[in-house]
Amino acid sequence: MSGGVAELLLAQARRPIEPVRLPEPLPLDAVPTPALVVDRAAMERNLQRMAGHLQQAGCGLRPHAKMHKTPLIARRQLELGAVGICCAKVSEAEMMRAAGIEHILITSPVASVDKMARVVALAATSAGVEVVVDDAERVRMFDEVARSAGVRLQVLVDLDPRMGRTGIAPGAPALELVRTIAGCPNLQFKGLQQYAGHLMHLEDATERATRARETAAVGLDTRALIEADGHEVVVFTGGGTGTFDVDSRIEGITDIQAGSYVFMDEEYARIGQGNRSRFDYFEVALFVLVTVISRPRPGTVTVDAGYKSFASDSVAPVAHDLPGLRYHFAGDEHGVLQLLEDAPNIELGDRLRMVTPHCDPTINLHDWMVLLEEDGRVHELWPVAARGCSW
Amino acid sequence: MSGGVAELLLAQARRPIEPVRLPEPLPLDAVPTPALVVDRAAMERNLQRMAGHLQQAGCGLRPHAKMHKTPLIARRQLELGAVGICCAKVSEAEMMRAAGIEHILITSPVASVDKMARVVALAATSAGVEVVVDDAERVRMFDEVARSAGVRLQVLVDLDPRMGRTGIAPGAPALELVRTIAGCPNLQFKGLQQYAGHLMHLEDATERATRARETAAVGLDTRALIEADGHEVVVFTGGGTGTFDVDSRIEGITDIQAGSYVFMDEEYARIGQGNRSRFDYFEVALFVLVTVISRPRPGTVTVDAGYKSFASDSVAPVAHDLPGLRYHFAGDEHGVLQLLEDAPNIELGDRLRMVTPHCDPTINLHDWMVLLEEDGRVHELWPVAARGCSW
Repeated sequence: MSGGVAELLLAQARRPIEPVRLPEPLPLDAVPTPALVVDRAAMERNLQRMAGHLQQAGCGLRPHAKMHKTPLIARRQLELGAVGICCAKVSEAEMMRAAGIEHILITSPVASVDKMARVVALAATSAGVEVVVDDAERVRMFDEVARSAGVRLQVLVDLDPRMGRTGIAPGAPALELVRTIAGCPNLQFKGLQQYAGHLMHLEDATERATRARETAAVGLDTRALIEADGHEVVVFTGGGTGTFDVDSRIEGITDIQAGSYVFMDEEYARIGQGNRSRFDYFEVALFVLVTVISRPRPGTVTVDAGYKSFASDSVAPVAHDLPGLRYHFAGDEHGVLQLLEDAPNIELGDRLRMVTPHCDPTINLHDWMVLLEEDGRVHELWPVAARGCSW
Repeated sequence: MSGGVAELLLAQARRPIEPVRLPEPLPLDAVPTPALVVDRAAMERNLQRMAGHLQQAGCGLRPHAKMHKTPLIARRQLELGAVGICCAKVSEAEMMRAAGIEHILITSPVASVDKMARVVALAATSAGVEVVVDDAERVRMFDEVARSAGVRLQVLVDLDPRMGRTGIAPGAPALELVRTIAGCPNLQFKGLQQYAGHLMHLEDATERATRARETAAVGLDTRALIEADGHEVVVFTGGGTGTFDVDSRIEGITDIQAGSYVFMDEEYARIGQGNRSRFDYFEVALFVLVTVISRPRPGTVTVDAGYKSFASDSVAPVAHDLPGLRYHFAGDEHGVLQLLEDAPNIELGDRLRMVTPHCDPTINLHDWMVLLEEDGRVHELWPVAARGCSW
């Protein structure tokens, strides 16, 4: 019985959820580096802009908590009207539920009975816990697990938007799966998920919009097919920060799973240039603060942050509001900044704010966010409570 | 005063150090995935092989704890004769010291007074705490910080082996820095560090050996220069898993900073082929256990581990002892396994052991190691207590 290890891990891994207030506000210089720093006012503006935009478009927001891993941010998103949050994994959902959050959609299929039992146990504590499915045999397993626990579990069918990661093919295969769910007394079919992650970072805004519309059309045809078969589709969820402005205006999409809009990152800085940038909507609100610790060669300095402080799956971090600096990873704990012609004078001990490469896996490296307030001081540390919760 | 935030973080971040014993041993199938799994017998053989090799070569071992981040492993390395451990960062050293470890060399230069104060505070609790320096002004700052604390701090000069990351140039600049240290009443010059990280993964074993010898020769010339100037060089530390067999036989190198030998990884699997592999000495003892959760396309399956479970700075993870599977990253929480012609039959729910890409930043993603014993069962979970301690 695998619950044993999961329970032990959960008990051991439980981390603080609430803010830790400093005895007195301190300048950012008082924070040891590398540190994950949040510009709180910029974050709040991003949160409100997305909420406002979607309210105007008449579309819901179901922000993805895998990005921030931080219940305090999830709570603020819910306060601003989000219909619920998304979690990528069961342990992430468990941590968010432990923080009192009720409406949680688990956006990855679950394939083993032990994890199904954990999903059902969560659903027993809140009717707002939902999970996606993409396979008939797993649907029947879920039905049996829900039956033993005396729970009626809400499930969404995960549609593969031709991305090849998870999900069932739209059209007839999806309809067949809905019929299987409808035949399971302990499951309740709630709707469809179609998340086109492969479109979010397409550089060209027009191509991105066109492909988002094409992809949505296929999913919405499946929605119509399922409804024509007599099943109510309460939810059609999908879309992210790269396509929210397109998706939110498509009739039939009920809510958007955006995550990165809260903080933005270098990956999003690079899309839509020459056309319309994501940064027209959202500001960079997240940084890794680093310190210059060495200068072994003329024309370069070394900072104290490498693979263990920045995600290394995509682009390199970029110095914020400083020209002439090019970051190169230099191992687990170091980066080398190449000083170009227009670089400022940089001294040992100088501290720099770096825009993060890919915000999600960068945040997942850090245990704490340092909240920088408009008075230029740090008042609170926020625990990244679901950090590492991929299981 | 930055001690405030560091102290708060340390107090909050303090995690379990000792093993968590399961109420009863469980099969690996009972562990939720993704999970970081250690083959304990293989780890123990690696630990003993390195200890035996270096004992025979008459060279010390100062294993780098940045690799495992786990005090329980550091303790075992010390039991087997290590002269001390290395830590990359101050918070890592603080966590190891909190676990009772006395001999700790901090292998990165420190550039700010607040961190110097933390180093000196650690040194006040153990005369075995040492730190590298590579800049005269920082040496004088350290002297002042040590003076205020009434501590005599042991320092090593970090030599740059033409890698351009940290360290001072060998020869006259290094000698000058040693003289500066000698003039500081609160510092004690202990020796030299020269870590040639850029050589560790050179594929060709002969080239690797040749360049390691050339690099060592430059450092040892500097050692002679410093000794001729009347300074005792007690320690000359450097070298890693890629060059330990060469470095340990060079007279004048007192100890080796190897880390990865404990676990090995795909990066090391790829060096020295056609000649002498690292795997002649050391076995793979570390895996990430994953589960197959979806199969959206013929010829592929999706597993539940991506950028948040595997380091993504180098190669891709590789299925252990199974042919015909090629892993591709598919986002934060997923990987797609391409099934080649000779692939076995793979079903939803199947669990696979993946050899990790780069072990150090992979371990740093996980909070726990699952210890798999020779009886094929899990008896203990080991906390990765210094995970995330890059500050």
